[in-house]
Amino acid sequence: MKVMVDLCVVPIGVGVSVSKHIAACQQVLNEAGLKTHLHAYGTNIEGEWDTVFDAIKRCHEVVHEMGAPRITTTIKVGTRTDRDQTMEDKVFSVKEKLEN
Amino acid sequence: MKVMVDLCVVPIGVGVSVSKHIAACQQVLNEAGLKTHLHAYGTNIEGEWDTVFDAIKRCHEVVHEMGAPRITTTIKVGTRTDRDQTMEDKVFSVKEKLEN
Amino acid sequence: MKVMVDLCVVPIGVGVSVSKHIAACQQVLNEAGLKTHLHAYGTNIEGEWDTVFDAIKRCHEVVHEMGAPRITTTIKVGTRTDRDQTMEDKVFSVKEKLEN
Amino acid sequence: MKVMVDLCVVPIGVGVSVSKHIAACQQVLNEAGLKTHLHAYGTNIEGEWDTVFDAIKRCHEVVHEMGAPRITTTIKVGTRTDRDQTMEDKVFSVKEKLEN
Repeated sequence: MKVMVDLCVVPIGVGVSVSKHIAACQQVLNEAGLKTHLHAYGTNIEGEWDTVFDAIKRCHEVVHEMGAPRITTTIKVGTRTDRDQTMEDKVFSVKEKLEN
Repeated sequence: MKVMVDLCVVPIGVGVSVSKHIAACQQVLNEAGLKTHLHAYGTNIEGEWDTVFDAIKRCHEVVHEMGAPRITTTIKVGTRTDRDQTMEDKVFSVKEKLEN
Repeated sequence: MKVMVDLCVVPIGVGVSVSKHIAACQQVLNEAGLKTHLHAYGTNIEGEWDTVFDAIKRCHEVVHEMGAPRITTTIKVGTRTDRDQTMEDKVFSVKEKLEN
Repeated sequence: MKVMVDLCVVPIGVGVSVSKHIAACQQVLNEAGLKTHLHAYGTNIEGEWDTVFDAIKRCHEVVHEMGAPRITTTIKVGTRTDRDQTMEDKVFSVKEKLEN
């Protein structure tokens, strides 16, 4: 089952600056070979359900290993059986309607 | 790794009434032996990472099998290494502070 | 416009224990006269759009005043024009289907 | 109070294709003069609290006017008092750490 995911990992108890933890998660996603797009409030991920969720679990492990005692993560996950759709398709589909 | 999850499954393309799909997910969670609390905008789940996420994947499969061509789900997942905390602990901890 | 909201406020940079900040938000919601249900990963809120979002803004102000330099909040908001539905209705509607 | 928001509006009861509703929301945000970045699972928004939330309310009104009987929206909202940070700053801050 293919998924489109938006991932936002928030380490708690490590102060206000969390970008190094987010970079570590990005590294995990890259190593898993996943297609990603980093934005200002999370990361879009495209891939197979198991690959994606294994990587998300690994993100939690890595961020804890970096010293964060607590993590709260928000995941949006979309699946569809009617057709294939990439991240680019979704954005294009909206932009196309904006231009008309 | 123990997790506290909040799950909100939204079937798309099946009309406005989605409670039968939510009930089917609840059934999946129950069959997985997970501790849950259903509220007005999702379900709190407590359990081991793999058990919980296997059940969430199963929810997507079941809701698609029920005829939903598209699903968008929001998952909040909390992990902590500093101490164990149940769903009841979290609510109690806030209520206790409200009374003082 | 009536809304059903799920609110989860996460103060960042104040350590791992955030229940006193959540209790302060609960107080804000109570003072606004809003109907709420506190669960293990947030708070369900029922009310008019403006009253609810004014209270959420006040929560951010109060949590910053308590010393949190950074806050990340997740809000789910549902509106419907087809019919009125309370928090209890939503839960009942799912539970009813579970029993059959 | 300046906010960084991630907005994901999901119309329910209008079939599987929702891009025209998302385009209409994008139009509302543009007309409000807000800085935005559209991604594959939502839209980053940067602006003042009231301007942003007035626009989000307007999105719900517009999507209902387009015929959607039900909407479920997820909003992430970040505020910080320690320093100013733009959407570009947030992304840059992570990318910078990835390169080292």
